[in-house]
Amino acid sequence: MSQPYDAFLKMVREIGQLGTTAALLDWDSETYMPANGLAIRAEQLALLAKLAHERQTAPALGEVLRELEASEITDEAALTNIRETRRSYDRATKIPAELVERIARESTVAKDAWTKARAESAFDKFAPHLEELLDLQRQVADAVGYKGERYDALLDEYEPGATAAELTTLFASLRTPLAEFVKQLADATKQPDTSILNRSFPVETQTLWCRQMAEVIGFDFQSGRIDVSTHPFCSGTGPGDVRLTTRYQERFFSPAVFGTLHEAGHGLYEQGLPMEHLFVPRGQAVSLGIHESQSRMWENMVGRSRPFWQRYYPQCQAVFREALSDVPLDEFYGAINAVSPSLIRVEADEVMYNLHIIVRFEMERDLIEGRLAVKDVPAAWNAKMTDLLGITPTNDAEGCLQDIHWSMGAFGYFPTYALGNLYAAQFFAAARRDLPNLMQDFSQGKFGGLLGWLRTNIHQHGQRYRAGELVERVTGSPLSIEPFLSYVRAKFSPVYGLA
Amino acid sequence: MSQPYDAFLKMVREIGQLGTTAALLDWDSETYMPANGLAIRAEQLALLAKLAHERQTAPALGEVLRELEASEITDEAALTNIRETRRSYDRATKIPAELVERIARESTVAKDAWTKARAESAFDKFAPHLEELLDLQRQVADAVGYKGERYDALLDEYEPGATAAELTTLFASLRTPLAEFVKQLADATKQPDTSILNRSFPVETQTLWCRQMAEVIGFDFQSGRIDVSTHPFCSGTGPGDVRLTTRYQERFFSPAVFGTLHEAGHGLYEQGLPMEHLFVPRGQAVSLGIHESQSRMWENMVGRSRPFWQRYYPQCQAVFREALSDVPLDEFYGAINAVSPSLIRVEADEVMYNLHIIVRFEMERDLIEGRLAVKDVPAAWNAKMTDLLGITPTNDAEGCLQDIHWSMGAFGYFPTYALGNLYAAQFFAAARRDLPNLMQDFSQGKFGGLLGWLRTNIHQHGQRYRAGELVERVTGSPLSIEPFLSYVRAKFSPVYGLA
Repeated sequence: MSQPYDAFLKMVREIGQLGTTAALLDWDSETYMPANGLAIRAEQLALLAKLAHERQTAPALGEVLRELEASEITDEAALTNIRETRRSYDRATKIPAELVERIARESTVAKDAWTKARAESAFDKFAPHLEELLDLQRQVADAVGYKGERYDALLDEYEPGATAAELTTLFASLRTPLAEFVKQLADATKQPDTSILNRSFPVETQTLWCRQMAEVIGFDFQSGRIDVSTHPFCSGTGPGDVRLTTRYQERFFSPAVFGTLHEAGHGLYEQGLPMEHLFVPRGQAVSLGIHESQSRMWENMVGRSRPFWQRYYPQCQAVFREALSDVPLDEFYGAINAVSPSLIRVEADEVMYNLHIIVRFEMERDLIEGRLAVKDVPAAWNAKMTDLLGITPTNDAEGCLQDIHWSMGAFGYFPTYALGNLYAAQFFAAARRDLPNLMQDFSQGKFGGLLGWLRTNIHQHGQRYRAGELVERVTGSPLSIEPFLSYVRAKFSPVYGLA
Repeated sequence: MSQPYDAFLKMVREIGQLGTTAALLDWDSETYMPANGLAIRAEQLALLAKLAHERQTAPALGEVLRELEASEITDEAALTNIRETRRSYDRATKIPAELVERIARESTVAKDAWTKARAESAFDKFAPHLEELLDLQRQVADAVGYKGERYDALLDEYEPGATAAELTTLFASLRTPLAEFVKQLADATKQPDTSILNRSFPVETQTLWCRQMAEVIGFDFQSGRIDVSTHPFCSGTGPGDVRLTTRYQERFFSPAVFGTLHEAGHGLYEQGLPMEHLFVPRGQAVSLGIHESQSRMWENMVGRSRPFWQRYYPQCQAVFREALSDVPLDEFYGAINAVSPSLIRVEADEVMYNLHIIVRFEMERDLIEGRLAVKDVPAAWNAKMTDLLGITPTNDAEGCLQDIHWSMGAFGYFPTYALGNLYAAQFFAAARRDLPNLMQDFSQGKFGGLLGWLRTNIHQHGQRYRAGELVERVTGSPLSIEPFLSYVRAKFSPVYGLA
């Protein structure tokens, strides 16, 4: 293209090269690094972060951005790269380096305090740190700027373009019908028996099974791998090298199997990003919410669907003979789709999950805006849990101290989980509309139709469209709660014997 | 210390951080990276190399070096860091960037040509590339400068301070007695039976055994690990994180077991380097030759010793019952210490090995000096093999095309292997002098005495002393062939029933 654009691209690619190098080091830290490697690793990562930040805020980048914005570029990929680099450049330059450092320091201390507070179930030990982190994040919001409210500036880090107002409307319309549906399920006379999932599932067999399931949905092991880590994640350096992790519990079927499908869903997105735009925004994922839509779709709408297990349950019974040979498909299908209120978000089923997020969204928004005092967090948390999920934590560890996010200074992150569920349902409805045989394909072990549809409609575009625009283009409508509500009603009513 | 020294240290540490980051990426490429990750990895490594080179040649580094050299610093570690950084700064700044790039490009092409030429056993297909690489390396030598001959400038890259003249003297005095001893062994009536090493040794059992052997000699798995790769190596990022690799052949006992002890020997050196000098010369290994002395000592002088197997052979028989239960210790000990001329260097035993190196050293020195024409390489190689080892390659693949080094532009690298063997023998003789019960300790599975001796005398010093000075300080004499000749005569004569 033009000489300035080439220079620009070189700068932006370097940022991507440094970021993916750090990602590989992080992956290694979580999988294979020996215990005593930590101190060395911390220094390597600090240098990579420093080098990336220097490049993200380089005056030369600002200059070439201005030059390009004033030029007559019409190439779509170039326009995407310029727009998204402008966004990250503005964000990076607006936040003073001194504030970035204070946040890094305070987060380290706060994470430690949170770990101890959670172990003792004593929120008051974490409270002063939360206060400090909120104050720092308010400063971030003020530095970055916002149209609506401060929370928008924080949300924008994780879900560009989303606003608190929009989320409030969505979640307000979702909370009552969802809570009511949950109540219907709880009151149903037919209830699944989940105890079969706690029989013995040998870890070696699970490992092979998970790999095979990732493979059948289309995860390419020439361009990726699965390893074990304490907390499952999807990482990697680009479409040719995607790293999933999972974890195995001998006495619990679900975490590894559905965790793998979840991470493989993230991985399919990464493998489908356009390699020709490696390291730059046009080749990167849209947002955390869109990423989560991919993982939730493969985990739940595919991996917990009846057609999927119609195809694979006989095989599953054969490999986990001891645990499953006396369990009919229906019973198994009910067990993996049981809905029940639980105190812990990461253990929530797909119906309850969004209620957990609404609790957090409402609270963190109120905290940032100063409408909720830090000292009142435990009481507010417990009240909302009682109101929305019908259960009340008996202590802070299983209540407001359960998640790591706030201790890392991440406010505005939680909503991307709920958005992921909503996007997933709306995308999936559109896929079923476009591919009438979709569910039948699943029952024959064919997932290429769905994957191709996702490649064409979502993956190949990288950051071409922002999340909201993408949803509207692909599905024909703006984001709505209806596809999600329809999906859960249609799926879970029969599981619980409801009309 | 002083403000300029702190600034200097910061710069030098960054070079080390970038280098060890690249090392981790290289390790990953050889162990876990999926096939399609290669293109991404190449770009990441190219950026890290560029960033490191910018720092190695930064005018600011030159300025602070001059300032420090003119100051009154007396701290030993600081003096080491300044001296060795001066050496690498001079080398990096003297070689024009354009020449570095040409070498990188030509090596890539040449490595490819070498792979094909070796597959077809056709030296003439590699010859033009070798010609070009030699020309480029002569330019490197001229740019770097040298006192004696061009070859010295190349050698200095791998074994700082060593000279062609010194090596010529050493090797000239070694070649005849060694070749004569080899002949004595070949003529002996008692010959070991090596076929027992080609029985079935299940890979899973080998894996456990290798790990255990690395552990018993002192390799710390909290600060390191063992994985599998095509070509075994030792890498890592510092004393807390050392990565060994090995490879397993079901029908060959030796490669994994002795390969692991070899790499663990490298690893023990890395784990023993002073952590407080992480990333800087005072915390790094002296040279390739000294590194090799550590691996060869643990592999051969410990791992192929009779006391070692007195202790571990019964256990080894128990785990490899099928292969070894009918093999007495003596027979096993003979098999793992068989000496026989072979065409391939990497398969050579510890007696023959140096003869392979002498062939390469004499040839590459003549090539660089222009005394040997590229077209005459195969004939010269075969003549030297016949003369020194008594066997003649029947084609180039098993002759002059067997090693990758020249195709990478690495001239002056081979001698470090032979130096490693000579250093190892001289160090080991000194250790036996200082620790009279050393061999008896081995027979009781105690290796802490030797490891402690190496830590104290070698590892903890990092680059405090150059190789030659280190040898003299530790052993009381300059490097000599005598300890090596005494060692092989004392060890191998009884194996072959000689007086």
